[in-house]
Amino acid sequence: MTRRTIYFVSDGTGITAQTLGHSLLTQFEGVEFNQVTLPFVDTAARAEECLARIAAEAAAGNGRPIVFSTLVDAEVRAVLRRADAVFLDFFETFIDPLEAALATKSTHTIGRSHSAMDKPGYQHRIEAVNFAMTHDDGASSRELQFADVILVGVSRSGKTPTCLYLALQFGIKAANYPLIPEDFDRMQLPAPVRGHASKTYGLTIAPERLCEIRNERRPNSRYADVDNCRFEVEKAESLMRREGIRWINSTSKSIEEIAATILRELRIERHVY
Amino acid sequence: MTRRTIYFVSDGTGITAQTLGHSLLTQFEGVEFNQVTLPFVDTAARAEECLARIAAEAAAGNGRPIVFSTLVDAEVRAVLRRADAVFLDFFETFIDPLEAALATKSTHTIGRSHSAMDKPGYQHRIEAVNFAMTHDDGASSRELQFADVILVGVSRSGKTPTCLYLALQFGIKAANYPLIPEDFDRMQLPAPVRGHASKTYGLTIAPERLCEIRNERRPNSRYADVDNCRFEVEKAESLMRREGIRWINSTSKSIEEIAATILRELRIERHVY
Repeated sequence: MTRRTIYFVSDGTGITAQTLGHSLLTQFEGVEFNQVTLPFVDTAARAEECLARIAAEAAAGNGRPIVFSTLVDAEVRAVLRRADAVFLDFFETFIDPLEAALATKSTHTIGRSHSAMDKPGYQHRIEAVNFAMTHDDGASSRELQFADVILVGVSRSGKTPTCLYLALQFGIKAANYPLIPEDFDRMQLPAPVRGHASKTYGLTIAPERLCEIRNERRPNSRYADVDNCRFEVEKAESLMRREGIRWINSTSKSIEEIAATILRELRIERHVY
Repeated sequence: MTRRTIYFVSDGTGITAQTLGHSLLTQFEGVEFNQVTLPFVDTAARAEECLARIAAEAAAGNGRPIVFSTLVDAEVRAVLRRADAVFLDFFETFIDPLEAALATKSTHTIGRSHSAMDKPGYQHRIEAVNFAMTHDDGASSRELQFADVILVGVSRSGKTPTCLYLALQFGIKAANYPLIPEDFDRMQLPAPVRGHASKTYGLTIAPERLCEIRNERRPNSRYADVDNCRFEVEKAESLMRREGIRWINSTSKSIEEIAATILRELRIERHVY
């Protein structure tokens, strides 16, 4: 297995550089990537520090380093371009065609993509996080009319991480309710959720995987028992089918995939912050 | 103000395309962007549907649409390239130089960048989310030795969203403790936090902003009173100074900026998932 050091260099948080670079690197197998993020590189002096670090790595004989950059400032970028490395810059590559397409000069302002400057948008997202926290695991049924999404599913089917991701990434207000034995006895959705079918979405999971997850929490409990997991999953799916609630199987899906699917199926518009 | 429609087209969740596009669009002022994400475009037939949608928009006279694409499959991409739009493809632009640099062919596998296939990494992240939930707002002091970061600060200084973001984005285990009047009386950190100074980090906030936030929660309360906010912030800063805890002022910072700063200052390695 070859090994290669990757640098994500940014004048801001480094999150865009890291996301883009990671997305490309997942396309390569048989290479082990040593990933280093260098955020807040917003002066030529800081860029020189990066250069030194990259040079030391290049000298160490681990192959030519690769630099993913989102540097907005041309002067800072020019310093880094001197690195003894493969230099892939996202900003420069796309900003020229965009300027031409929009017939507008870009502002070349650093640190814009993850700033709190877009204040209403930012506030919206923080409110969504607060909403997810107060409406986690059926904790509150107040203000459910303001929820964009209500997730239902058996305990440990992935509801909480999905709601938090929807809030943080998309500013979506998401509540979640567990489906529990009392719901199966009645074969009805939890009372507060009824009447919100159009924004309710289900998560289900393979009983074997559920058993694994629950065993980590409460080993050898009835809660984690595979037969009980099978029973709960079966009942939950019958209940959702009966109530006309669509669902997704979270077993081999990431929260990003689950969230993107839910938003598409409920036809909720996606914003980025 | 001109208006332009932007499409983020992806064969996966669309999150990479959206992150890249958003980061670039923040560089343009005086243009209003209508942003549409089209995820899971993984067949030529689905790409044709996108074409039709883009054509309709182009015909509507709102200027030439702009397409940000992260399509991995060459055939699907070829369909979309026929769109009457400015076409900026992220994958094609960077995969060739990367293949050359790594002397390896990429796998051209769709939907890799946000999949749960990297199972240990994915599990790690979900565990971090669970950790943040059980260790929010001083709720539990168990297993604090496993925390990567412990945030402290007055109520509503931004601790909870930051911890959740650290967990979801970076798989970092983050706990948080409020600083309350009892702590100010003793002028000591909350008991469970003492002895963890090297991984403790503070959040502070402008008293006027704190007053605004608290007033939304509990209008006209002593809790939200501006003099009380001033008192708490001043005491919290004295306490952190005395205990040698570094802090960041969250007033005009996004959670991304706060998180990136904390990781850099505590010298915690960043992973991407």
